[in-house]
Amino acid sequence: MVLSARNRLDGTVTAVTTDGVMAEVVVELGDGQTVTSTITRGSVERLGLEEGDDVSAVVKASEVMIDKA
Amino acid sequence: MVLSARNRLDGTVTAVTTDGVMAEVVVELGDGQTVTSTITRGSVERLGLEEGDDVSAVVKASEVMIDKA
Amino acid sequence: MVLSARNRLDGTVTAVTTDGVMAEVVVELGDGQTVTSTITRGSVERLGLEEGDDVSAVVKASEVMIDKA
Amino acid sequence: MVLSARNRLDGTVTAVTTDGVMAEVVVELGDGQTVTSTITRGSVERLGLEEGDDVSAVVKASEVMIDKA
Amino acid sequence: MVLSARNRLDGTVTAVTTDGVMAEVVVELGDGQTVTSTITRGSVERLGLEEGDDVSAVVKASEVMIDKA
Amino acid sequence: MVLSARNRLDGTVTAVTTDGVMAEVVVELGDGQTVTSTITRGSVERLGLEEGDDVSAVVKASEVMIDKA
Repeated sequence: MVLSARNRLDGTVTAVTTDGVMAEVVVELGDGQTVTSTITRGSVERLGLEEGDDVSAVVKASEVMIDKA
Repeated sequence: MVLSARNRLDGTVTAVTTDGVMAEVVVELGDGQTVTSTITRGSVERLGLEEGDDVSAVVKASEVMIDKA
Repeated sequence: MVLSARNRLDGTVTAVTTDGVMAEVVVELGDGQTVTSTITRGSVERLGLEEGDDVSAVVKASEVMIDKA
Repeated sequence: MVLSARNRLDGTVTAVTTDGVMAEVVVELGDGQTVTSTITRGSVERLGLEEGDDVSAVVKASEVMIDKA
Repeated sequence: MVLSARNRLDGTVTAVTTDGVMAEVVVELGDGQTVTSTITRGSVERLGLEEGDDVSAVVKASEVMIDKA
Repeated sequence: MVLSARNRLDGTVTAVTTDGVMAEVVVELGDGQTVTSTITRGSVERLGLEEGDDVSAVVKASEVMIDKA
């Protein structure tokens, strides 16, 4: 399957924090920068997400802002 | 100012394409991965965005999905 | 690959309208209801989207609102 | 009132899970597909959402991605 | 109908700019601050949006960031 | 830094509710209207958000819908 979301950043899961409904997942990219995602607890369980997993952080282009000095 | 958005990926603008209302901006990160953003044409003009600019791609954690093989 | 986005609605593309930067894609679901998506023109070309294609409309749970009479 | 969001999928609430801040609501559509939404606990209380309620799942077109085999 | 989106800011349309697929709508609030929205051209036509219209700018709580000096 | 997000509404924090992963922040604007935001608990701690803080509610134009009577 090919998804229309333009942004797919490969990295490794370094932390998973779950709550009743939500979960926070931190992914470290190749250059050491990190990406934090909040997804549902249900998705963490469905994907079986754990520290050390190789994953992609996926973001639709319309959700990305640009900040310029 | 400190923004609550958790994701700030530093990089360089490699392409800016504008339309009547929208614009597409491509940012290359340190590790060669790219991030594509669609923002309004007005924002491109307000920020004076051009190829070669050092910028940050900013994404709220709730907009990031996780994809696992 | 398994994506964390919780919503995957299967249907058929009934219309694709492109512009300089953006594109609008209409998908008809099994029960006749339709889903409209705006994605980048680049994504339409990358996916080779055309009328009649079998696709899934994918939406992160945090982007879905509820309306009650 | 008419809302600009293009997507309005009618269905029935089949589950409501609440947490301190957030809540997860599952809606079953006419064709048996389901839509999951995360909204604030405050919204669940304000709408008085319960299993069996007839509701619409509302999504802005810019939040819908397309996945093609 | 009651929508789960928590934010509803009342104001008046001061500008509508349309493109092939997208449109930009500017709304002035009571205190003179403005809110800019990008919606589809189709939504502008469906709502018959024009300068001077009394409208509400509606935003889901998960889409609002906080910036602190 | 200048951020591409078009909407920046100045106001004062009137409530902060935190949970395991998420937090809800209410901001009162100059004209008495309020804006509710859900951000991560981590962001509340990083910004040191408290009642009485002067902040801006920041929203990307693509996340704003329009509702017309």
